[in-house]
Amino acid sequence: MGYTDVDQLAVNTIRVLAADATAHANSGHPGAPMGMAPVAHVLFNRIMKFNPKNPKWLNRDRFVLSNGHACMLQYALLHLYGFGLTIDDLKQFRQVGSITPGHPEAHDTPGIEVTTGPLGQGISNAVGLAIAQAQTAATFNKDGFPLVDNYTYAFLGDGCLMEGVSSEASSLAGHLQLGNLIAVWDDNHITIDGDTNVAFTEDVTKRYEAYGWQVIEVKDGDHNLEGIEKAIKAAQEVKNKPTLIKLHTVIGFGSLLQGTHDVHGSPLKAADIKQLKEKFGFNPEESFVVPQTVYDLTAKKIAEGAAFEAEWNELFAKYGQKYKAEHADLVRRLKGDLPEGWEKNLPVYKPTDAAVASRKLSEIVLSKIEEAIPELIGGSADLTGSNLTRWKGAVDFQPPSTGLGTYAGRYVRYGVREHAMGAIFNGIAAYGTLIPYGGTFLNFVSYAAGAIRLSALSQVRLIWVATHDSIGLGEDGPTHQPIETLAHFRALPNCMVWRPADGNETSAAYYVSLTSKHTPSIIALSRQNLPQLENSTIEHAIKGGYVVHEDKSADVTLVSTGSEVGICVDTVKYLAEKNGLKARVVSLPCFEVFDAQPKEYRLSVLPDGIPSLSVEVMSTMGWERYTHEQFGLNRFGASGPYKDVYKKFEFTPEGIAKRAVATVDFWKDVPNIRSPINRAFQQIV
Amino acid sequence: MGYTDVDQLAVNTIRVLAADATAHANSGHPGAPMGMAPVAHVLFNRIMKFNPKNPKWLNRDRFVLSNGHACMLQYALLHLYGFGLTIDDLKQFRQVGSITPGHPEAHDTPGIEVTTGPLGQGISNAVGLAIAQAQTAATFNKDGFPLVDNYTYAFLGDGCLMEGVSSEASSLAGHLQLGNLIAVWDDNHITIDGDTNVAFTEDVTKRYEAYGWQVIEVKDGDHNLEGIEKAIKAAQEVKNKPTLIKLHTVIGFGSLLQGTHDVHGSPLKAADIKQLKEKFGFNPEESFVVPQTVYDLTAKKIAEGAAFEAEWNELFAKYGQKYKAEHADLVRRLKGDLPEGWEKNLPVYKPTDAAVASRKLSEIVLSKIEEAIPELIGGSADLTGSNLTRWKGAVDFQPPSTGLGTYAGRYVRYGVREHAMGAIFNGIAAYGTLIPYGGTFLNFVSYAAGAIRLSALSQVRLIWVATHDSIGLGEDGPTHQPIETLAHFRALPNCMVWRPADGNETSAAYYVSLTSKHTPSIIALSRQNLPQLENSTIEHAIKGGYVVHEDKSADVTLVSTGSEVGICVDTVKYLAEKNGLKARVVSLPCFEVFDAQPKEYRLSVLPDGIPSLSVEVMSTMGWERYTHEQFGLNRFGASGPYKDVYKKFEFTPEGIAKRAVATVDFWKDVPNIRSPINRAFQQIV
Repeated sequence: MGYTDVDQLAVNTIRVLAADATAHANSGHPGAPMGMAPVAHVLFNRIMKFNPKNPKWLNRDRFVLSNGHACMLQYALLHLYGFGLTIDDLKQFRQVGSITPGHPEAHDTPGIEVTTGPLGQGISNAVGLAIAQAQTAATFNKDGFPLVDNYTYAFLGDGCLMEGVSSEASSLAGHLQLGNLIAVWDDNHITIDGDTNVAFTEDVTKRYEAYGWQVIEVKDGDHNLEGIEKAIKAAQEVKNKPTLIKLHTVIGFGSLLQGTHDVHGSPLKAADIKQLKEKFGFNPEESFVVPQTVYDLTAKKIAEGAAFEAEWNELFAKYGQKYKAEHADLVRRLKGDLPEGWEKNLPVYKPTDAAVASRKLSEIVLSKIEEAIPELIGGSADLTGSNLTRWKGAVDFQPPSTGLGTYAGRYVRYGVREHAMGAIFNGIAAYGTLIPYGGTFLNFVSYAAGAIRLSALSQVRLIWVATHDSIGLGEDGPTHQPIETLAHFRALPNCMVWRPADGNETSAAYYVSLTSKHTPSIIALSRQNLPQLENSTIEHAIKGGYVVHEDKSADVTLVSTGSEVGICVDTVKYLAEKNGLKARVVSLPCFEVFDAQPKEYRLSVLPDGIPSLSVEVMSTMGWERYTHEQFGLNRFGASGPYKDVYKKFEFTPEGIAKRAVATVDFWKDVPNIRSPINRAFQQIV
Repeated sequence: MGYTDVDQLAVNTIRVLAADATAHANSGHPGAPMGMAPVAHVLFNRIMKFNPKNPKWLNRDRFVLSNGHACMLQYALLHLYGFGLTIDDLKQFRQVGSITPGHPEAHDTPGIEVTTGPLGQGISNAVGLAIAQAQTAATFNKDGFPLVDNYTYAFLGDGCLMEGVSSEASSLAGHLQLGNLIAVWDDNHITIDGDTNVAFTEDVTKRYEAYGWQVIEVKDGDHNLEGIEKAIKAAQEVKNKPTLIKLHTVIGFGSLLQGTHDVHGSPLKAADIKQLKEKFGFNPEESFVVPQTVYDLTAKKIAEGAAFEAEWNELFAKYGQKYKAEHADLVRRLKGDLPEGWEKNLPVYKPTDAAVASRKLSEIVLSKIEEAIPELIGGSADLTGSNLTRWKGAVDFQPPSTGLGTYAGRYVRYGVREHAMGAIFNGIAAYGTLIPYGGTFLNFVSYAAGAIRLSALSQVRLIWVATHDSIGLGEDGPTHQPIETLAHFRALPNCMVWRPADGNETSAAYYVSLTSKHTPSIIALSRQNLPQLENSTIEHAIKGGYVVHEDKSADVTLVSTGSEVGICVDTVKYLAEKNGLKARVVSLPCFEVFDAQPKEYRLSVLPDGIPSLSVEVMSTMGWERYTHEQFGLNRFGASGPYKDVYKKFEFTPEGIAKRAVATVDFWKDVPNIRSPINRAFQQIV
């Protein structure tokens, strides 16, 4: 409270910087930054706790710009509040190599918590950040030691509210009673197609109340700084509900075109910027100017931030004296390191062990490591009993009042909300104290494609437990049988796709997924039982590919993944008996990891001089990179008992042998067969 | 009204058939069919208009089972109401080759309108069916000729309500005031994870009211047939709102395990089925039995259905006398044929014509053909001005009361709802009178992956206008620049992915997309200007691939798509001048269509004896099928002016030439270089 002219000047400085930067770049979105400058000022100057000198301080309040196209708002704030973004950085807005790209990217820019822009993601990430806060608080806070009590604030626009992912995440946030989550809806009635009346006339307030949120309306978001502050404080007071603040603003406030969609996604014209600066008391001849009084104002907040953290560090040190183990655990988690020796818990199998479905093998891994890795927080999109994602005795993450669990619980019931689950993973991972994993059928991982590409881009560690990974799921049929899914995610940069063939490979998939701090993973797992393979070891499988069955005089290499590796092994015998051919078998559970091995190793697995045939019951796309010929399923599957389905599509020793014979025949006249591993040049720029 | 014991017997017959079929298959979901049998009986026996002898009769009421796992309910109904499903078909439930697969598939089974199972899709398809009905009615109905006045009914469960896609579609349905849409929510409080209390505690009634729906509650959905009928009739009465009927049922009604999630996805045990049959007056020793009185009851309805259509046919014949052109138009549309000569409207370009962005070329196509093809119904997910999807003078599809358009309008403002747009496309296409297309950025087509795989599986014609198709979008940066997207959808069976390089290729993309009655298409279009190419013609491009620049003595073939083809043409000159090498250039705008050409043709485009290099600014995945070497972007892009971004990643004549030289060098010692077109065996089973 007690806002002065300097506050108003600070607000207008943000507006002018947004206009300047978008004009300078001749690209970008000035409208939302200009409209949301007042609430941004109140939030950053009066409400939020953060220390810009250490943007990773654990107990900072989190800020998420879900309408990421408004990023000049955030960049202006990060400049004003000392996060290390310079005026030069603002001048480099939307230029190659800058830390001020067209949408906020968490891995590059200090002070950006999550990567946003694709609509609906940020607010869903915020739900994840709030879940992580609640879980971490319930786990670590002690009487007199409120180590973790931060809020998560999110700004969002109409676009975010229209996206289904935000509906899913908001419904869950209401169910989970996340009082630590405060969202501000920029209710400016404008989208790219014009007035929201053309497509978006629902009663948002009523909808969010239906989700179990508190909704507070602020009528004059352009001027009423006091009202904004009051609303945020009222939001903080309600502890068992997330809050949506419906903030009326005028898009592009100050522009001659304010209130129209013309200020949404195009820079203001020179004359417009001139009048804007004159109106706000800026020199129209100058650009990228911050009045000293504004710097003075924000300097106070920066100093306060350092004090916040210093105080917290003292508290944390005292905590360490009293709660040594918890202190050490938290320090370790914040570094992203796993507990020493955790990997000794990974199950190891012998070829004589029973055949087991890899979804079950995954459950065994989780059950064995959950105690050793307390930062694992699991869940499923309402397929717990099918994904086998919940270890015995797990406690659900639930509001205590439901009687169904506690906030210290480590198993999230995501509901049938795959996309939100993916976006929430990103938020949980970004918080810094937890590693999320969760299950659905592989086919429905696609529902979350929008979130997963941001997992990869923002370089976070998380695991999709993707069961029912092929036509091998059988009766559910083509609507549930993935064909294109592995190709899709294998084509996504910085995303590991695993398809383990047995127990040791499943352990390896978890080992690499958990030790890769900056990469999300998808582990594709079978519904049907798989035999334990000869020569499969964790050490072999963590290379992403290895020889399951060697034969130096082989006529053909069979290269496969998951449930088909065992069938390839059976095919070796079939080929020998029926066709007089010798075959090697290679398992390639993870392309991405195999690609990272030294060429010499890769050539030892897929050598020159011998033709190769890939075998995988889905799209052959991408297999040409590793093999000369491909046997796959470039069509939809079929509904039936899985053995019948495999037979229909000839994924049997007989069917594979037929193609292996054709492969040998086709390549027999080629001298010096070259392995596809050999390439004319390195592919990655 | 006036329900008798025979009605109750019919209800129980459905329950027993569901129990029998799932037990016989030892797979499937008995719970929802048993719980929803009463409402299904009321709807099929008392409410819906259909003629099972002609399941494609235009003015039939549409039925969508959004909770598709309950398909034994639908199969039982299709049997009882004479759609040609026999008792033997029910015995073949979930077996390979049956017309009763694990989830309903529209292309295979008479009476199935849309393919469902993946949750949230069906209800969103239903919104599309309702839009198509409203548009068709507004277009064709005349005074005294209510040709089209059918309703769309959808059943859905809690899972469908949790999915974001249904939220998006329901919000839009409310905005569009679709009074012809009536959905029944099976409020049974059970999902796979158990009680809905674990994850789904929102106030659904309030949420749907917020969307602008009417919500009617029926307390005893297990017995109260009158109440159900009353509710449906009340829903029909409200003309400007879709209705959600909240129907309380007990899942697995009749089973010893009724009301628990144990009856959701597993067959009942033998003893349970025995008591069920005894309780319902069936002989426990017999299976798959329908009492004759039930057949008699449904026979009446079947006869009525034939009468409905006969009456309608008479009306339609009279309509034809009075409105000859409209009659002929509708008859043509129902056959799926395009108007004769429409293709003459496709624009044609000469190499000397100006360079134009392909999104703009797409706009020109749409503007030229919209009049010739009145069944085209366009739209955009709130990116109209960027996607350029709206022809000048288009009328919006809007409720007349909004003053923003009419129901005869042919442009849908989808809002920022990509996934719903995709699912609504499927519904519109399934209705039979319209061809939907719509725009978003290529990157956000991924949000709709769940709907698009069902477009492909259910074999419907529709077009995604996917603009901003690469790093060439520039400043928006990596959050918006697709890398994996083309690979994803190229790997999807029965989905055409086009990436035209110029004007003629854009015309060709539309030509093939519109003339392919059973295949969805994605047309990837540039933001930046593209030159008109030598040798590019519609005739060439509709083959999916052709030679843009021939040189019989070439050292290397450059193979490319879209915006990179022009750069490859420039590279030919560069290679000649700087490296003394000759190059051919091939454009491959659509893999799927190229793959369908005769091998001889494909080999003429990609011949033996010469090494080839693909050039595309995204994932190289899949290009190994066509070329020996690949230049692409197996990493995320960058934010900046597009020319700077292209330069950064070396997609310039210089950068391409460097890789072409490496390619020539790498392959120079290989005798008889084999084109990748040659394969050891046919890939598709």
